[in-house]
Amino acid sequence: MPHLTIEYSGNLRDQADMPVLMRRLSEVLIAEKTADGKQIYPTGGIRVRAIPYEDYCIAADQIPDAGFVHTTLRIGPGRTPTELKSTGDHLFEAVSKHFADLFEHRGLSLSLAISEFPPPGTWKQNNLHRLLKKD
Amino acid sequence: MPHLTIEYSGNLRDQADMPVLMRRLSEVLIAEKTADGKQIYPTGGIRVRAIPYEDYCIAADQIPDAGFVHTTLRIGPGRTPTELKSTGDHLFEAVSKHFADLFEHRGLSLSLAISEFPPPGTWKQNNLHRLLKKD
Amino acid sequence: MPHLTIEYSGNLRDQADMPVLMRRLSEVLIAEKTADGKQIYPTGGIRVRAIPYEDYCIAADQIPDAGFVHTTLRIGPGRTPTELKSTGDHLFEAVSKHFADLFEHRGLSLSLAISEFPPPGTWKQNNLHRLLKKD
Repeated sequence: MPHLTIEYSGNLRDQADMPVLMRRLSEVLIAEKTADGKQIYPTGGIRVRAIPYEDYCIAADQIPDAGFVHTTLRIGPGRTPTELKSTGDHLFEAVSKHFADLFEHRGLSLSLAISEFPPPGTWKQNNLHRLLKKD
Repeated sequence: MPHLTIEYSGNLRDQADMPVLMRRLSEVLIAEKTADGKQIYPTGGIRVRAIPYEDYCIAADQIPDAGFVHTTLRIGPGRTPTELKSTGDHLFEAVSKHFADLFEHRGLSLSLAISEFPPPGTWKQNNLHRLLKKD
Repeated sequence: MPHLTIEYSGNLRDQADMPVLMRRLSEVLIAEKTADGKQIYPTGGIRVRAIPYEDYCIAADQIPDAGFVHTTLRIGPGRTPTELKSTGDHLFEAVSKHFADLFEHRGLSLSLAISEFPPPGTWKQNNLHRLLKKD
């Protein structure tokens, strides 16, 4: 059930290279393991999307051409605090590395948050798990 | 105060027929009743929107042309667990039926979540209830 | 960490004047003070964005050309209930004033909600605070 959403200011569109970042963050999620070595986020449940905003106002428009990238991970409940922290650390490390060069050269704000789907839970119908196993 | 958001991958745009789905989900919300038969979600408060994402990465790109549709209902607090479950069941049944044919023929992930607006509550100004009563 | 998102129906696009509203709401956030007079929301952390939806269904399509504007503020935890209420009141007052004329002349629904980023907290890397201090 991991849903990852990357919101970003439209002025980063040409440099953001979102397909690469989305793929990289997917790999980070796949690599997360429980204490006994099991994959935490099933590959067939991972959905990443990126959305550029054409209309935005950062720091009250006081910094010319400032940009932002805010990543939100939404997951089902039940992960341990250790797992959540590890997931956030690794995702944000990847985001930070992806934008390292840009961060040196322009006003930029990177952030990440994690939230769990609240009760009464979620509803799902997904044939991707089956399609993956076929491969 | 019901806000319904349908996020979906842009590769479903031509087949998704969102106007029909948005109308159908509105009708589902209108039909939900309390135990004593009162309409739970006032018609004038229902706002449905759909957003296609051009940039997405599903199942780490391991399934060609996979798609996803994720629906989120945000409502004010105070509904009973029974009401929430009924609402989710009926909404997801409608989503699932809407995409039944597509689900048979391609990689597709359907999901739905419900969340309540947290404290300190919400602020509202809405002339739609009045306009509806005029009709 | 304040993130402000203005969702609105695309039929308001020509009249919404979002750059003006986004700037105004940024100023409202900057003006919020704690009981002992400190700025609550650091200028360098404020990120406002607006998103028009082309596909929407309001009040089950029963009111011709109805529109909606829904504003969500997401902030870090730790603000007092009084601070949250003051912030919401002032933001919504500004939204309401911005759309006052439109509200008189068409079906319109304005709303605002506040949510706190949940545990395990957020990850941040931001050079905007430093760039602001340089100015």
